Amino acid sequence: MLAALAQGRQAAEEGEIPIGAVVVDADGRIIGRGHNLTERLADVTAHAEMQAITAAAETIGGKYLRGCTLYVTVEPCLMCAGAIAWAQVSRVVIGCADEKRGYSTFCSRQPFHPRSTVTYGVMADECRRLMQSFFHDKR
Amino acid sequence: MLAALAQGRQAAEEGEIPIGAVVVDADGRIIGRGHNLTERLADVTAHAEMQAITAAAETIGGKYLRGCTLYVTVEPCLMCAGAIAWAQVSRVVIGCADEKRGYSTFCSRQPFHPRSTVTYGVMADECRRLMQSFFHDKR
Repeated sequence: MLAALAQGRQAAEEGEIPIGAVVVDADGRIIGRGHNLTERLADVTAHAEMQAITAAAETIGGKYLRGCTLYVTVEPCLMCAGAIAWAQVSRVVIGCADEKRGYSTFCSRQPFHPRSTVTYGVMADECRRLMQSFFHDKR
Repeated sequence: MLAALAQGRQAAEEGEIPIGAVVVDADGRIIGRGHNLTERLADVTAHAEMQAITAAAETIGGKYLRGCTLYVTVEPCLMCAGAIAWAQVSRVVIGCADEKRGYSTFCSRQPFHPRSTVTYGVMADECRRLMQSFFHDKR
């Protein structure tokens, strides 16, 4: 999660919403990193998780991330939850919740792969503070 | 929807799952087209809707598709429904349903922009037949 937070801080420095994500393989190696790039790329789909998943798939030369863990500083939105499901990521570790846009606000069923596990609240305070300070500075 | 179906047929010719999508602006011009490219790009996020949305955003040079209509041959998955929401597409026109992976199977709340409208079942038979014949030929 520290690596995901570092990605989030990098996003903030670039004026992007400070959300970061990394994908780690079964051996504990980081195989994909990403942070929000929606402003720079003028692309609403350029979320941290999408970048990290695409980067990880490129690293391993395949589109499925079975056995991998995705760490993300803020609860994924519906789009990213769907992408995590398609990629068959085995474990999802989430920092702070997103009550407004998080997938759990919209979903009546767990959207991830049936055998995947989800952990909430890892370094949640740090993840939330990064978001709060960004939006505070913007005002 | 005919243009979306043409995209779907092109996907089938390329060995991709035959789903097509187009984005039409408020003047009725097609500003983005897309079909499934998950195999060719080895990227689980390369769905028809994602391609069409990204193409449309590039055409207009902005990331929001307010006033636009997205036509898609098969009900969007969670990921694509999320992307459609982020892009603020005003109208979503869907061909056939996807009981297994469609967003409505997972969502307890309408995921799109609050002011957007959704129309189901437009040329549903043609859209469904395209999928069925593809998977029939694959077996």
